[in-house]
Amino acid sequence: MPIITLTTDFGTADPYVGIMKGVVLGTPGLPADTHLVDLTHRVRPQDIMAGALTLEAVLGVFPREAIHIAVIDPGVGGDRAAVAIETDQGTFIGPDNGLFTAVLRRAELVRAVSLTNPRYHRQPVSSTFHGRDIFAPAAAHLARGADLTDMGTPIAGLISLPMPEPIEKRDALEIHVLTADRFGNLITDLTRERYETWRGESASAGGRNVELEVGHHTIKEISRTYSEVEEGHPVAYFGSTDRLEIAIRNGSAEQMLNAPRGGALTPGRV
Amino acid sequence: MPIITLTTDFGTADPYVGIMKGVVLGTPGLPADTHLVDLTHRVRPQDIMAGALTLEAVLGVFPREAIHIAVIDPGVGGDRAAVAIETDQGTFIGPDNGLFTAVLRRAELVRAVSLTNPRYHRQPVSSTFHGRDIFAPAAAHLARGADLTDMGTPIAGLISLPMPEPIEKRDALEIHVLTADRFGNLITDLTRERYETWRGESASAGGRNVELEVGHHTIKEISRTYSEVEEGHPVAYFGSTDRLEIAIRNGSAEQMLNAPRGGALTPGRV
Amino acid sequence: MPIITLTTDFGTADPYVGIMKGVVLGTPGLPADTHLVDLTHRVRPQDIMAGALTLEAVLGVFPREAIHIAVIDPGVGGDRAAVAIETDQGTFIGPDNGLFTAVLRRAELVRAVSLTNPRYHRQPVSSTFHGRDIFAPAAAHLARGADLTDMGTPIAGLISLPMPEPIEKRDALEIHVLTADRFGNLITDLTRERYETWRGESASAGGRNVELEVGHHTIKEISRTYSEVEEGHPVAYFGSTDRLEIAIRNGSAEQMLNAPRGGALTPGRV
Repeated sequence: MPIITLTTDFGTADPYVGIMKGVVLGTPGLPADTHLVDLTHRVRPQDIMAGALTLEAVLGVFPREAIHIAVIDPGVGGDRAAVAIETDQGTFIGPDNGLFTAVLRRAELVRAVSLTNPRYHRQPVSSTFHGRDIFAPAAAHLARGADLTDMGTPIAGLISLPMPEPIEKRDALEIHVLTADRFGNLITDLTRERYETWRGESASAGGRNVELEVGHHTIKEISRTYSEVEEGHPVAYFGSTDRLEIAIRNGSAEQMLNAPRGGALTPGRV
Repeated sequence: MPIITLTTDFGTADPYVGIMKGVVLGTPGLPADTHLVDLTHRVRPQDIMAGALTLEAVLGVFPREAIHIAVIDPGVGGDRAAVAIETDQGTFIGPDNGLFTAVLRRAELVRAVSLTNPRYHRQPVSSTFHGRDIFAPAAAHLARGADLTDMGTPIAGLISLPMPEPIEKRDALEIHVLTADRFGNLITDLTRERYETWRGESASAGGRNVELEVGHHTIKEISRTYSEVEEGHPVAYFGSTDRLEIAIRNGSAEQMLNAPRGGALTPGRV
Repeated sequence: MPIITLTTDFGTADPYVGIMKGVVLGTPGLPADTHLVDLTHRVRPQDIMAGALTLEAVLGVFPREAIHIAVIDPGVGGDRAAVAIETDQGTFIGPDNGLFTAVLRRAELVRAVSLTNPRYHRQPVSSTFHGRDIFAPAAAHLARGADLTDMGTPIAGLISLPMPEPIEKRDALEIHVLTADRFGNLITDLTRERYETWRGESASAGGRNVELEVGHHTIKEISRTYSEVEEGHPVAYFGSTDRLEIAIRNGSAEQMLNAPRGGALTPGRV
């Protein structure tokens, strides 16, 4: 029972995603019980880091046999490679632009192939829609049992995005902004797991306080949801990617806190 | 051919729904021809009554064997039960918070179980995402043929939301607001069927006029669609749940009519 | 492995699309490996031409055996026919209101049937939701192998929308606006293929320049994406339907260029 997931920044107003599914389902030899699952098509447009964080969500959830297509692809038609990456937690297909950075930090790489074999492409290959012409066919062929090594040439040195990690400083943990989502909520490098480990280590010493300085505000607790604060005030909570997010209710934290993407959050005691 | 539907207030920007599907599809023993169907993921956030009304839509449409997961769950992590409810019109899985009130008024309860057996949970069970950890696994296990009674303990006295019914008054029918949707359109307790019965009863007497007082306006007819009135004027029509809805074109009826949710509409002759 | 696609203007907030899928999946005899694919449910409400252009996207992508339901149906409940149209590139089901105009220009008609046989309807047939009561059942019955000719009476003279084509004028190509999408982007009758042929023909003469007059602006190149111009300036690019679109970044080209739908764009040299 093959599973193919799709993650894009295409939105759902246009038929692009349906077209990719049509290519998959029209591939001769595809097992009839192949399941297609949308992860999300509302990744912030062209935001590779946001796509990378979304893809992490499949780890530990989908079976290892699942095939994950991801298309956040500002460089389509240029010289970036198209790749398929087999890991011990699933196979990932998409542009080699850093989209798999977060997955590859947690999953074990088995092999990676540059999808250069034209026999596995939909012809003619356009310069604008590799989701249809290269990635969807590759996923379908893998699902029907094609050999990954036949689909192209091995590739080493996959593109990796810089991805900071929290830095331990005396009693505090310095955390950083990775990106923002489409609402302007800031997504940081502090995972729930990392946070709980860090809290746990000092449990004997009475736990640690949260004191997060963002702009002119200090956040003194981690909320369970977005809606626990007044309008205009910042709130911190663990979001869909299991990372600490900072939002401003009914506002854009990205704009109001003047947070540079990829930049460091004002170090705070978390 | 098992069918599992999903109804949530998660939206489609985050990968939560895809994650639930991954859990279902990764469950050993799941029949390969299981069909996953999205009902909607845009129920007004945390609006249990809105979710209850949406779920009614499956009655009479999906076969009895279908399994319906619903996650509008403001109390997740608290002490509300997680339940599976078998009826003569489908099995429903979700939090015991009133979400199945409307379904249980029209379908016959066969048995209800509190999903307490940890063997059927995804471990560890989080305090924030029972859709992934309890409801999706329960649906998948039912789909593969597990016995509902093995999944937990029988539960009686399911939570029920107060749900008014139209009240017959001389020549008029007093109707009430159940909730509003995300656009602020008011959803009332008058179903199309109830309306037609009531109209029919007096057909020999020349039918009955519509005269619905809302705020300072009087609505004198039931429109077929939303778009039949001028901007700023209220319009009444039967909506997606087959209930009379009151909207203001390009405005929020909830705000402009100052309608309390759950409160009575100014009694009018419908 | 039957494939059924769905294209509507229902949006995804209401459960209408899920209901149609429930009707399909509940049809006795439906092959268990039937695949349901959403093309899009965000066609501009009641915009038949926009739906017609969206449907073109399935041509050359989905296999010939695929069945495509389309419901952009402002005339539901009136006297427009409900039809199933078999072509050499797929079977199309929906209202006979011009929705299949663009498809029928490119695909070869095999036969068309007015879906009048009540045995293939969901009873009772409502006056508002033929997607559930007529179109979904028709698709399911076709998928299980029913004979199209048994489902109704042959119909000739399908409704066709006026659909201009670019007109060659000396050295220029006069193009026209077909419709606008929900963002106000204008969609023209110039396909990428037509454009490339026209450019190619004069390649020996040094190619042809783009000089597109829209309102008070002149567009001097065809951009690859929407985002290549400053706010408030118009941009032309080939969009999701492979037709030239004209947009204004962060604005509505339809409103700002005062473009009548169906009207001619100020003739320009493309």
